[in-house]
This record gives sequence, structure tokens and C-alpha cells, in this order.
Amino acid sequence: MKRYEEIMEIALNRLIFFPSHEIYGGKAGFYDFGNVGARIKRKIENYWREFFVRKHNFYELEGAIVTPEIVLKASGHVEEFTDPAVACKKCGKKYRADKLVEEKEKSYVFDGNKEKLEEKIKELGIKCKACKGELGEVFFINLMFPTQIGYDGDKAYLRPETAQNIFTSFSRVFKVEKKLPIAIAQIGRSFRNEISPRNVLVRLREMTQMEIEYFFEEGKDEVEGWEKVKDKKFRIKLQGEKEARWLSGEEFLKYFDNKILAFFLVKEWEFYANLGLKEDKMWFRFLEDNETPHYSKANVDMEVETSFGVIEIAGNAYRTDYDLKRHAEFSKKNIEVNIEGRKFIPHVVELSMGVDRLMFCLLEHSFVKNEKGWSYFSISPLIAPYEVSVYPLMKKDGLKEKAKEVEEMLKERFDVYYRESGSIGKRYARGDEIAIPYAITIDYQSLEDDTVTLRYRDDGKQERIAIKDLVKKIEENIRKGKTKLE
Amino acid sequence: MKRYEEIMEIALNRLIFFPSHEIYGGKAGFYDFGNVGARIKRKIENYWREFFVRKHNFYELEGAIVTPEIVLKASGHVEEFTDPAVACKKCGKKYRADKLVEEKEKSYVFDGNKEKLEEKIKELGIKCKACKGELGEVFFINLMFPTQIGYDGDKAYLRPETAQNIFTSFSRVFKVEKKLPIAIAQIGRSFRNEISPRNVLVRLREMTQMEIEYFFEEGKDEVEGWEKVKDKKFRIKLQGEKEARWLSGEEFLKYFDNKILAFFLVKEWEFYANLGLKEDKMWFRFLEDNETPHYSKANVDMEVETSFGVIEIAGNAYRTDYDLKRHAEFSKKNIEVNIEGRKFIPHVVELSMGVDRLMFCLLEHSFVKNEKGWSYFSISPLIAPYEVSVYPLMKKDGLKEKAKEVEEMLKERFDVYYRESGSIGKRYARGDEIAIPYAITIDYQSLEDDTVTLRYRDDGKQERIAIKDLVKKIEENIRKGKTKLE
Repeated sequence: MKRYEEIMEIALNRLIFFPSHEIYGGKAGFYDFGNVGARIKRKIENYWREFFVRKHNFYELEGAIVTPEIVLKASGHVEEFTDPAVACKKCGKKYRADKLVEEKEKSYVFDGNKEKLEEKIKELGIKCKACKGELGEVFFINLMFPTQIGYDGDKAYLRPETAQNIFTSFSRVFKVEKKLPIAIAQIGRSFRNEISPRNVLVRLREMTQMEIEYFFEEGKDEVEGWEKVKDKKFRIKLQGEKEARWLSGEEFLKYFDNKILAFFLVKEWEFYANLGLKEDKMWFRFLEDNETPHYSKANVDMEVETSFGVIEIAGNAYRTDYDLKRHAEFSKKNIEVNIEGRKFIPHVVELSMGVDRLMFCLLEHSFVKNEKGWSYFSISPLIAPYEVSVYPLMKKDGLKEKAKEVEEMLKERFDVYYRESGSIGKRYARGDEIAIPYAITIDYQSLEDDTVTLRYRDDGKQERIAIKDLVKKIEENIRKGKTKLE
Repeated sequence: MKRYEEIMEIALNRLIFFPSHEIYGGKAGFYDFGNVGARIKRKIENYWREFFVRKHNFYELEGAIVTPEIVLKASGHVEEFTDPAVACKKCGKKYRADKLVEEKEKSYVFDGNKEKLEEKIKELGIKCKACKGELGEVFFINLMFPTQIGYDGDKAYLRPETAQNIFTSFSRVFKVEKKLPIAIAQIGRSFRNEISPRNVLVRLREMTQMEIEYFFEEGKDEVEGWEKVKDKKFRIKLQGEKEARWLSGEEFLKYFDNKILAFFLVKEWEFYANLGLKEDKMWFRFLEDNETPHYSKANVDMEVETSFGVIEIAGNAYRTDYDLKRHAEFSKKNIEVNIEGRKFIPHVVELSMGVDRLMFCLLEHSFVKNEKGWSYFSISPLIAPYEVSVYPLMKKDGLKEKAKEVEEMLKERFDVYYRESGSIGKRYARGDEIAIPYAITIDYQSLEDDTVTLRYRDDGKQERIAIKDLVKKIEENIRKGKTKLE
């Protein structure tokens, strides 16, 4: 069984995630997060908010998903948010044309040129996977979900990214705050009507994004807290380079002189490493010029190795004043700011991260199967679905009552998973499987001296501890990220 | 100015909420939550999760918004989720037909009968509001937003409620947990393509719901924690009664014998009161038989008085096995459970609450304008956008640096609002306006003896307190809900 298949099996059996409306067979590209997955997902989001937003006094926004067409004409999505497709001339089956080529030629990057793509398909002799039929011309499919507003059906789409709410509300925020820089963050659903969704959580039609738009005056790339992060390092493949190298934030400025972008790179690296991604399986990639949109001065993606190959889990871009200018043009509003008499349209550095893909990568990188055949996810206690489990050794002899007391006490502070049925070994295994870092067992000694055992997920080892010290101990373990006794 | 107009003005000027994509004029029924509103909204959701879900070990779910048509055929939404409308024969303008009648006759309740509604409109002599033209026949408009999945355009809708994800995933959850009762909660966006959205956050096209489906074996209406809540009281208008009376959970059982429903009513009352809704402006209403769907054994709504009149902010319903049966029928899957050899389809009690409307009601009920003309929202510190503000009296003489230290310390534990410009009185007023309950001022004395002033939002009074005691003091105030010094 491949690694992702093992994870998928656990995901289904332990309520991490499963196909939406599964009893109807589900539709490709849509997943629901069950009790365990919904908790992990929320904790990732909360930690992101803490780490990126709250710590730096950034602003928040929670905007509408349904988006009028004109907004997405301004953003370019109506014209350009497309994928190249081909259909089989014989059976009619449709494919992502560029992905067909990528499968044969790993290094291939689609540059928007339809004719070149058609040549490639011919050159590589690619046929229909279903019936071996010949493939037709390349055509473009818009990836937005269309809808309409109101009885008269004004054309609208589900937002393809959360960023547009931020751009169109910038004037309102500036009017209130009257200063720069302003950074606005949003966590929310976005939608992409993929031609062939696949790879579990990697290519979804409905996903959650975490985005920040950092608005500043061109040339004034100040960011509070720069001094604290500038010497921290991350791995990056620079333009034209195949190997990733370690660079600090400060060193990155030699290759692209913008502190805001460098600040985001340092923060992202730390964020991903803190949660449990493996540092030897991730790197930034400075996109080549032919991959960078015309309006962008620099694009840097975060790439991660998975059993589906290398996938992108974050994008950073210095988008200049492109987005605000387009919205000014299409809305016919003046959205210049006025700072001490200088009138201009602010520049933007964007940070865009996906939650679902990240969760999948975290599960993959942290998946461990030990010699007993038990498996667990060695993720950070910060994002565990429950921080601690409580198990009475037996239901009888007052052990259950004692365990319930401990559960109540711990619930004041933690998310607690309580189970009383099954052998204690089986309960440990089940708790490990959903990544609970600490297990408390109430046994006969507990009744005598008010102590319990505290078991660690990653090495299965236990220590004996007084009930009255439990909260402090677990808090300390979480802070240290400690998931092994030794 | 009407109360809601004053609130709307503050909402716009202080980033609570504003029309989505405002620079394009916005579309009726869509709002974005700005920095202040997004924080309040999230805190309401977090408190709900704590109060309803975590405390009772309920399950969580986070499901997809885009929903295949068959799911909504099973749920009845494709056929029945409609509003009666009329169009003007002269100018073509469309109206919600039942709302036109309700405006003239407060007690009117639409019972689904088209002919009776048409008669009412004639009888009351209702004409087009725009051109006084005659209104045509009543017709029905489906309120779902349509969309399509994938290149071949499989028909789908944006979910009109979060509940259907819960019903269609129930089998999966039961398969894993193998027990009843099981309660599954979900917070998420829902969509209703209203004919005439209005009243700010009250009648939106895109909204956030907080729902719980409680699955149990018919006749076994057990709920853990019942003993702790059964004597708590709420106000309710029983069937046929115009005045609300106080009933305890236990007393409610005399009128409808289901502990789960009674449990939810007690919890909801406490939840709303804790957040700051006025107990004399809210009540439950036990719906009359002609307002209750055929499959439901009892529906109880929560109604609240606002400047838009009485609005519904929560619904409770004993939906029996209707939903699961319909999904079994349409999916052709056996979704019976087997508990100790008894095979059956579980019954459901549903709790459904709206976040946006609640937020609007909270702002209205808590809005105070004092003798100085200052206004504030007297909401619970639990849902304040920031718990505490920090202001240096002046920027000079080291006051700013000292204030920054205090800010850093408080940020470890609270959401902190820091401002250094403007007179201190103006900063207090601005902080009150966005409901921050506690303001800390660093003055010259602070430099000498490490004390600061702690000011309370609701009476503007201050006390002097040592910096080292601040965290404990504010935590204690939050716990007590204390927003006045005296």
C-alpha cells in the first residue's frame, strides 16, 4: 500500500476526512472534515492566525464568497483563470492538457502557448487514456464556479481566491486607518472547478486559503519585527538553480531587495517547521521569469515532497500596484491614498497558503509505523485534535469515576478524548492513530495515591505523575513540543 | 436617526461590517466583516463551540458548501425551498408576496397556499410600491444559488443550510463510533438567494450558521448533563399564547416530552443572555401546528425584538427520522443502525442558529449612548474584538516605550489594541465605540511606580493598578463579565 493510501484508510476510519456526501458516491474534489480532521484543521488556522496575524497586529477580514462578475473581470479571472484541456476525438473524455505532458516530461511548464502545447502532445504521442483515441485541439476552460444573484440572475462566481475581498475593501480600511503599511489577512473557502481533481486533498474543487495582502508605499518596504527575523534561515532554490541553499532573510535581500517578501519567507519556513513538516522535504522556489506574471516583480513558491510528487503549498508574490489599479479602473473609483500630500496607489506583497494541502502534507510527513505495526502522526501538540486522552484501566472499582474527575479537570484547559471501552493497549493504539500526544491512565494505584500514568505518543513510554501536577506538566510539554518521554 | 442607522454608521466607520465589494456598489445581501467585526464574529463562534460542543463532547464536522443536486432533492430543498413572489404587471418589479401582506397585517403567517395569499393581496388592496401598478399572480422562486460541477456541468447548489452535510455523513460517523446518542455540530456558510435581502445583517444572501444534529433512538431522549440544566429557566410563548412565561427545562417537559429539545432551550437561553442579549427582549415561541412541517413533532424558535421588529435568530425542531429516511431512499443505501440487535433509523433533534443576525441583535441590544454623546456596545468581554487597549498618555518622555512593554506583556494572553495618537479622551471614546471593555493608560506615575490606570468601558471609571497584577486582574474581570468599576 502506498503511503497516501494508508493515510486515506486512517482518514476514513477515524473521521479525519472523507468524500462529501459519500452515501451518494461523492463528487471528485470535495471532502468533508470529520470530528478529528475538523479539529486539526481549525487548530492549523488558529495557529496561523496567532503566528502571522495577532503577533504582528495585522488586520483581519471575513468576506463573502459569492462574487459579482465585474470584480473578477477586474482581477483577470474571467479571462485568464483557465486550464488548457483536450478532449478525445473518439470517446469525448476530457483531460488537463498540460498535466498529460507533465506526466511524461517532469520538467515541463505550460507557458500559456496553445500551439506549443499541441505540438508537445503530438511529439510525445499522447493518446486518450481510456480508449487510446486521438486527442483534439487544446481549448481553455474557465475554472470558476458560476452562479447568479437574485431573481434576475446577475452573473456571479464563487471566489477563486480570498484575495479579491481584501483588494476591494482596501479603500474602506484605509479611510478608517489613514496610514501605511496596512496588512490584511483572511482565512476562508475558495473554489476552483478543476477539470480533473485528484490526489485527495491536494487538488480540490473547494478548499480553504489563508492569505495576507501587505499594502505599502513603493520603496518603503518596512516591516515591524524585521530585526527579530532577519537572521533566521530557510532553504530556497534560486532562479536557474536546481539545488536548494540555506539563506537568511537578510541574505535573501541580495537576490531580491524587498524586506516584506523576505519577512514572509522566514515566517512561513518557521510556521511549517513548527507544525511538523520535514525541513529536508521542503524548500522555496524562486520562480523563473517565464513563470512569473507580467505584473509581478517576484514570485516565490513553497514546494513540498509528497508521495504524489512535489506539490506547491504556498505562494508569495510582489504584485506591485496591479490589483488596486485594475479595481480602480473597473470600479471607476479613485483609490489613491494620500500620505502627507503624496498621492499614490499602494504596492502589495501577497502571501497565499492552502490549509487542505498543508494538512495532507503534515499527515504524510509525520506518519510513522512502528515495529508493532502501530501507526501514529507525529504532528505538533499545537494542532493535535485533542491534546490529551483519559482512560480508566477498568470501568469497575471506582476507576471510571476517578477518570471522569480527571477528565473534567483537564477539560477546563485542554481538548480531552475520553474512552472507557476496550483493552488499554487498544485504546493507546487508537489514540496514537489520531495523533493525541498525551494519554493519562487511571489505575488502582491512582485510587491510593492520586497519581496517574502519563504516556507519550511518539515513544509509548510512561511516567507516573500526581494528578494535581497534570495541567502544569501537559502545558509545559505542549510549549516544548515534547512528544517523547526521553 | 434610527438605532440601526446609528449602528450601521459605526459599523462602516469602525470596520465592523460593510457591503461586500463596496467600491462596485455592492450587491444587496452580502456583507464583509472588517477587522473589528471579523474578531467579534469569530469570538461568538468560538464561544458557541466551547459552550455547546466542547463542554458536552459533541462531534464536529466541516463540510463542503457546493452540494450535488440529488442531496437537495432528498432534503426537499429543490422542490420546497421557495418563497412566494409577485411581480408588478406594469413595471415588472418583484416582491416577496407574503412579506407584503405581513407589512399590513402583522399576525399573518403564510401557510403555503398560493390562492389564499393572492386573495389576501387583493383584499388588502396591495399595489406595487414603485409605480402603484397592479400585482400579478403569486409564483414560487427557489432560493438556492445554482452552480455546476466540472466540465460537464453536473447540477449543484450552494448549500442552503449546513445540516445536510451532517445527515449525509451520519453513516460514516456511526460506522466509526458504533453508539448512540451522537451529536454532530457544524459552523459554516450557508446561502439563500433572497428575493429582497434587507435589514442589514438580518436577511442576508450569504450567512454563517451554527447547527447541531442530535441523533438518538426514538424514546431514549437521554442527554448527558441534563441534571445540571433542568432547573434553569427561559421565557417561552407556548402554542396559542401571546405572552411569554418563564419555564424551567423540567417544566417544559409537561408541554413537550423530549429532554434533548428542553436541554437545547435551556442552553440557548443561557448562551444568548451570557453574550449580552436582553432577557426582556427575547423569548422562545412554540410554533403553532400550521407552522410546523408535517414531519416535525415540535418546532421552537427563538425570537428577538429589534428596531426591524421581531426577528427569528434560532430554530429548534424534533425532525424525527425524516431526514435520514429521505437520504436512505434517494441514495438507495441502508443507513439503519444496529444497537444490540435493534435495527432502526435514528431520530434527530436539530438546533440551528445564525451568527450574523445574532451579531446584529447583540449590537442593537447593547448599544448605549451616554450623556456626553459617546456611544459604546455593552457586550460581554468574551466576544469583544480586543479585550484590552493600551495607550501611552503621551508619545514622549519614555511613555511610549513603557506602553509598548505593557502591550507585549498583555499580548501573551489577550487581544490588545494599541494606539498612541490623539488625545487620551478621544482614544477612550474610539475604544468604547468598538466595545473594548478595558483600557490601560501609561502615564508619568507609571514611570515612577510601575502602576497604570485601568478604565472600564461601561462607566468610564478608573482604578490604579500595578503592572504586575494586570493580567490576573483582567482575567478575573473577564471571568466575572465585569465592565464597570462599581
